Amino acid sequence: MEIFIEPIGKLINEFSKLPGVGKKTAQRYAYKIVNMSKGEAEEFARAIVDCKAKVRYCKICGNFSEEEVCEICKTRDKSVICVVRDPRDVVAMEKLREYKGVYHVLHGVINPMEGVGPNDIHIKELLARIDGSVKEVIMATNPDVEGEATAMYIAKLLKPLGVNVTRLAHGIPIGGELEYTDEVTLSRALSERKSL
Amino acid sequence: MEIFIEPIGKLINEFSKLPGVGKKTAQRYAYKIVNMSKGEAEEFARAIVDCKAKVRYCKICGNFSEEEVCEICKTRDKSVICVVRDPRDVVAMEKLREYKGVYHVLHGVINPMEGVGPNDIHIKELLARIDGSVKEVIMATNPDVEGEATAMYIAKLLKPLGVNVTRLAHGIPIGGELEYTDEVTLSRALSERKSL
Repeated sequence: MEIFIEPIGKLINEFSKLPGVGKKTAQRYAYKIVNMSKGEAEEFARAIVDCKAKVRYCKICGNFSEEEVCEICKTRDKSVICVVRDPRDVVAMEKLREYKGVYHVLHGVINPMEGVGPNDIHIKELLARIDGSVKEVIMATNPDVEGEATAMYIAKLLKPLGVNVTRLAHGIPIGGELEYTDEVTLSRALSERKSL
Repeated sequence: MEIFIEPIGKLINEFSKLPGVGKKTAQRYAYKIVNMSKGEAEEFARAIVDCKAKVRYCKICGNFSEEEVCEICKTRDKSVICVVRDPRDVVAMEKLREYKGVYHVLHGVINPMEGVGPNDIHIKELLARIDGSVKEVIMATNPDVEGEATAMYIAKLLKPLGVNVTRLAHGIPIGGELEYTDEVTLSRALSERKSL
């Protein structure tokens, strides 16, 4: 005999598909659903279907959007483009409520080890956006090997187009301690030291 | 402007209702849904609605069931009843694949601090099940203050009915170390020592 009755077993199985969710956690989530009211459960289900049905990618920047062109591309300063790997990096930047430009989402980074080449991410689309009106492209890929390589690769393509390419600064995080900063970061912080 | 577009924001909000899920985790789950195929997302949603629609409580034991009476109550040895707090405790017991009796789910334990009295949990329903055919009632509530008190309370009600009431053994967990066993458990293990 199965330990879980079929509808619960199935829901546990679905929840297990979420990132970082094992059987035990999925089980807790499923119990929560069972204990919800019918209306609540239906609203939950509807949110999932709606999210899938309504969310598409902005045809300009590649970020999540409900319409063909996203709110950011419609309303913001197009002379600065911030290049990120993922839509979730857009969220990180937007939380600052400081950046006024637009974005370009690559949907990945160049990673030869996993067979991801320059043509597999949205680099062509970025190049197509560069016209006389773009003054600066900020490379905001992650400071790891693939992110750095991707930033370098794109910078090389952009410079001949006469656009100013910048990169987010690296260094010791605010609130961090010298003693516990890894050597690569510390060495970067030293070589990129600024005069006071 | 909102950081998340509405359908994603709404789904994040729904996922945040799950136990132990904060904004960040809910966000990861929502991205996973966006990256699913339409079919997968719909199946996920259907599992939620189905789970809520199809799962009810067995009218005998109070465990989750698809029918009026659950599979366990239908097919197993009714002379032994194992009393637990939650349906999830039934799952824990069933995983042993050792216990052949039936269950009784209390749906809570007596907890005066939170205003839960004997009439708020399924004790009456348990008493109604005790007839000549029941030989043993195993109290398997958790070994915490409320669980112990509930077990004692129910045992007191059951004994006059001439039924054998037992309690799961307490002691040092298998694989545990004496040095790291808490004092209450160790003292219990000592006072309940068995001859070899």
